[in-house]
Amino acid sequence: MATLTISSKNYSSWSLRGWLLCKMAGLAFDEERVPVDDPDAKAELLLLSPSFLVPRLVLDDITVWDTLAIGSVLAEIFPEAGLLPADRAVRAHCLSISGEMHSGFANLRSALPMNIKARYPGFKVWAGAQADIDRILHIWRGSLTAHGGPFLMGARPCLADVMYAPVCSRFTTYDVPLDAKTAAYRDRIMALPAMQEWIAGAFDEPEELEELDVEF
Amino acid sequence: MATLTISSKNYSSWSLRGWLLCKMAGLAFDEERVPVDDPDAKAELLLLSPSFLVPRLVLDDITVWDTLAIGSVLAEIFPEAGLLPADRAVRAHCLSISGEMHSGFANLRSALPMNIKARYPGFKVWAGAQADIDRILHIWRGSLTAHGGPFLMGARPCLADVMYAPVCSRFTTYDVPLDAKTAAYRDRIMALPAMQEWIAGAFDEPEELEELDVEF
Repeated sequence: MATLTISSKNYSSWSLRGWLLCKMAGLAFDEERVPVDDPDAKAELLLLSPSFLVPRLVLDDITVWDTLAIGSVLAEIFPEAGLLPADRAVRAHCLSISGEMHSGFANLRSALPMNIKARYPGFKVWAGAQADIDRILHIWRGSLTAHGGPFLMGARPCLADVMYAPVCSRFTTYDVPLDAKTAAYRDRIMALPAMQEWIAGAFDEPEELEELDVEF
Repeated sequence: MATLTISSKNYSSWSLRGWLLCKMAGLAFDEERVPVDDPDAKAELLLLSPSFLVPRLVLDDITVWDTLAIGSVLAEIFPEAGLLPADRAVRAHCLSISGEMHSGFANLRSALPMNIKARYPGFKVWAGAQADIDRILHIWRGSLTAHGGPFLMGARPCLADVMYAPVCSRFTTYDVPLDAKTAAYRDRIMALPAMQEWIAGAFDEPEELEELDVEF
């Protein structure tokens, strides 16, 4: 049996990624939830400390934390789930843009924190975060064109789509203007059954973290 | 033929990681160097923009950037190099701590930037960076104990050692106090032939980036 430890469904973008990976892999798992006011969980959500607490997956004799590590391990155990593309060059592209999201985009994270339940129509994005958004849209357009869509690496959603899924939620929350192609991609990810299940879970959470509700 | 694009050997910790991975894989490759005063390279070194410029590896039909992605691709093409441990649970551990370094430790990065040629004896580490150092030493001790040393995952250096190699250089530059076990590990990594080759290259570089020389 497997257990995935997560924190807030509304606020924790890393938890969302780990959870989507488990769902897409077809893994049967229990969810264990760290309360959002746990000091370690809160520090992570407020970008004050590294995220070794969640997501964390225990699966047989394996303990693995960190989203990309969970993705690698699940891709290995469930190759048929297509978390990594079968073609070597496409797989390298998938890993590159997944890695870029994993280590970068700090301005986007701090200025537009994930907050699934909130809506900020006409939100004004500052220049530093806009540079991150521009890079993400460049990545999306390039990937959709290179691999033919409808997902970043082609016909099936994979690790790369999971890595950028919280961005789709952020673009919705903060009303970020997109062109037709990238807006359609955002909507496609938001409409995935697993994504809808997670979003419903976020709306069921009573907790709010005032520190993560943006001034407007 | 393969080409690896890097920037400064003295300052760029991501370049060092990508280069060590290629060396450890046994890959024959050309180095292409982006000048340290290139606006994109400089922005990355000053933590102002994401690092999609370097390191970047072009290998046959594959283009891959981002250090972890380069590690995954090389581990797949050169399995005998042992970049990823053979045991599944050990591999999951390796990927977890590698991922943690990849996405975290922002305070360490900004307060103790890699600067191979510099020495700051008695450097005073601020509390935020000290928390990162404490977590790293916890990871090192746990890994050396769990897998028996002398490297993080056991007998051979692997991806995890590469990910933490720039930390060994930082601990040397900033005179960070270590216990006997972690100091021996730091020295072991600094003494690796590939590491010594990179360090010699750093000393051959004439450029200096004043913005990265810490006030003391």
